[in-house]
Amino acid sequence: MTDSSPGDKPAVKADQASRPYSPGLEGVIAGETSLGYVDGERGRLTYRGYRIGDLVAHGSYPAVANLLWTGDWEPNHRLPTAPIPPAVLAVLRALPATTKPMDALRTAVSAWGTTLDLPWPPTVDQARALTSFSPSALAAFARLRAGQEPIEPDPSLDLVEGFLYQLTGSRPDAGTARALDAYFIVGAEHGFNASTFTARVITSTRSDIVSAITGAIGTMKGPLHGGAPSEVVDQLSQVGSADHAEAWVREALAKGERLMGFGHRVYRAYDPRAAALRTVAEGMAHKPDWLQLAIEVEDVVLRVLAEKHPDRPLKTNVEFYAAPVLMGVGLAPDLFPATFSLARHAGWTAHALEQAANNRLIRPDVNYVGPPERDLPS
Amino acid sequence: MTDSSPGDKPAVKADQASRPYSPGLEGVIAGETSLGYVDGERGRLTYRGYRIGDLVAHGSYPAVANLLWTGDWEPNHRLPTAPIPPAVLAVLRALPATTKPMDALRTAVSAWGTTLDLPWPPTVDQARALTSFSPSALAAFARLRAGQEPIEPDPSLDLVEGFLYQLTGSRPDAGTARALDAYFIVGAEHGFNASTFTARVITSTRSDIVSAITGAIGTMKGPLHGGAPSEVVDQLSQVGSADHAEAWVREALAKGERLMGFGHRVYRAYDPRAAALRTVAEGMAHKPDWLQLAIEVEDVVLRVLAEKHPDRPLKTNVEFYAAPVLMGVGLAPDLFPATFSLARHAGWTAHALEQAANNRLIRPDVNYVGPPERDLPS
Repeated sequence: MTDSSPGDKPAVKADQASRPYSPGLEGVIAGETSLGYVDGERGRLTYRGYRIGDLVAHGSYPAVANLLWTGDWEPNHRLPTAPIPPAVLAVLRALPATTKPMDALRTAVSAWGTTLDLPWPPTVDQARALTSFSPSALAAFARLRAGQEPIEPDPSLDLVEGFLYQLTGSRPDAGTARALDAYFIVGAEHGFNASTFTARVITSTRSDIVSAITGAIGTMKGPLHGGAPSEVVDQLSQVGSADHAEAWVREALAKGERLMGFGHRVYRAYDPRAAALRTVAEGMAHKPDWLQLAIEVEDVVLRVLAEKHPDRPLKTNVEFYAAPVLMGVGLAPDLFPATFSLARHAGWTAHALEQAANNRLIRPDVNYVGPPERDLPS
Repeated sequence: MTDSSPGDKPAVKADQASRPYSPGLEGVIAGETSLGYVDGERGRLTYRGYRIGDLVAHGSYPAVANLLWTGDWEPNHRLPTAPIPPAVLAVLRALPATTKPMDALRTAVSAWGTTLDLPWPPTVDQARALTSFSPSALAAFARLRAGQEPIEPDPSLDLVEGFLYQLTGSRPDAGTARALDAYFIVGAEHGFNASTFTARVITSTRSDIVSAITGAIGTMKGPLHGGAPSEVVDQLSQVGSADHAEAWVREALAKGERLMGFGHRVYRAYDPRAAALRTVAEGMAHKPDWLQLAIEVEDVVLRVLAEKHPDRPLKTNVEFYAAPVLMGVGLAPDLFPATFSLARHAGWTAHALEQAANNRLIRPDVNYVGPPERDLPS
């Protein structure tokens, strides 16, 4: 063993050399799941076997969350948002107004855990309670930083409507609630992404569901995972109107610029989440301007891309529709990642339940590539 | 693909069958490190090549933390505890008095992140600031739940002394501070345990150092990782005095009871961390009763174990000395896991720096073993 500089091959001990080494764990299968299944080649995403498009067409976020937790499909399952415990509200009031929404959500979830006893193993009731708490917390934070008072949950509203109500103070129209509910469904679960994996590693030590989801939120905060959905909004702003779309796209491609919202690491075919969101958008009686613009721009982009690259047509990804849906329902762009986290609560908590049900500590090994054993300098 | 019951072998897709499958990632090497090196066979632990016993004998926790962050050995490096930002103090005041200390520390660290801009990549300054904040936060929580006011840091005291001062309101004697400092040094780093791995997964998404350490604290909360150090205290309480040690040990072994603080998953030889703590304990002018008892009980246990199992002598592990050191300096047993977390801050943050310096998203794959694609029930 010797000191190694970054470019060197690591010095590997004899007992390490024979073991599989996979930086980033790419291609290593770290566990099993019965929840989400992503087929990138065919452009398919299923939750417990049900196609994402069918779930959006016939379900709601509470029904989908319940499906992920229990395996049962109850299309009329309800889940109103939950009240914020007084201690957590005091925590939210204490946060600086400049707090980033992801940091506020991470802190609110962690603080929520201090108000409860959450025995091992995690339960469906714990998952339900946490998933229904977080929208209230994010809405309260958004109001407090704007100098407004938080709004109590309305138990007659289901989770996504309730979130919008607590955010804005008025009940959303059905089309708006439906569009955001569709966004929550397509964001609910997506296999072993980095945040879900974090939730499972934390759960694997027999830690509690709040610790798992606090860690997952912190993981999703990273731009390599949570992405930058507001970039699609910036792009749509630049396009301005559908009339200008074709000229804008041709100029952007000529300049070698990257088109936001097209292409995906996993999906080679059309992203089924984008397809589901577009279907909902097209069915809306009164489309928000952002959604209408996105639909028209997508048509132009796909036509131009197919003309330029008939051999490898880039396909629309979920972010292309996620951003205009979130803008369309009136969310500030800096709330997008935290809203994505609210949607992913169903999947994260379902993975915590699944990990706990058949638990094994997740603990990989590491190659030591540092200095050999030596004396302290005298 | 079919539905699988828990006992079935999972249905594996063709493209998954050829890839390495390692539930728990046991034996899979997930990355490289130049920080800690654990040689369980020989009973060795080094930080950047320096033996743990030498670091305890010649250094202090601030010097060791600085070594882990920078690679430089500066034995006189200082790191006083840091003041608590007013917003975080308000958060701590809002937490219920029944809050578990690990939940309080997780929430305090998360809240600390809301008061700062922590740009990527993480820096040594960020690591230093967080590591010097957390002892103040845990001490403030412990006082607040007891109805006492928090105490401001004394910048003339180094980190471990400062923590004890802020906890108790009086400056610890040199021997007490030295014993706890030794505990902090041996707890600072230990390779890719589950909490350190969590910190690296979170960092790998380009998330911030606060998100990484918040996740790590939540991971260490799990008893499969953080352990149950108070069990050693319970055992020493049962023994009561050194005179009764031999009779107690023989009776416990005859009844097939497990001796807490002996044996380790990795170390086959004497745990070098236990050895370092015992050396410090033996050198103290005035040993706390708990430490004196531990030393005497260990001698008896090792003698009896060697007599009963000459072929596979169980060796003392770090928890056997960690618990009496923590009791000896006056910590309540329910603060042990959070104090362990304070010590591990140096390693966690050093791993965040190391991950960021040569980053690659950590994202394993998963075997889907759930239902095949199907229609929703009508």
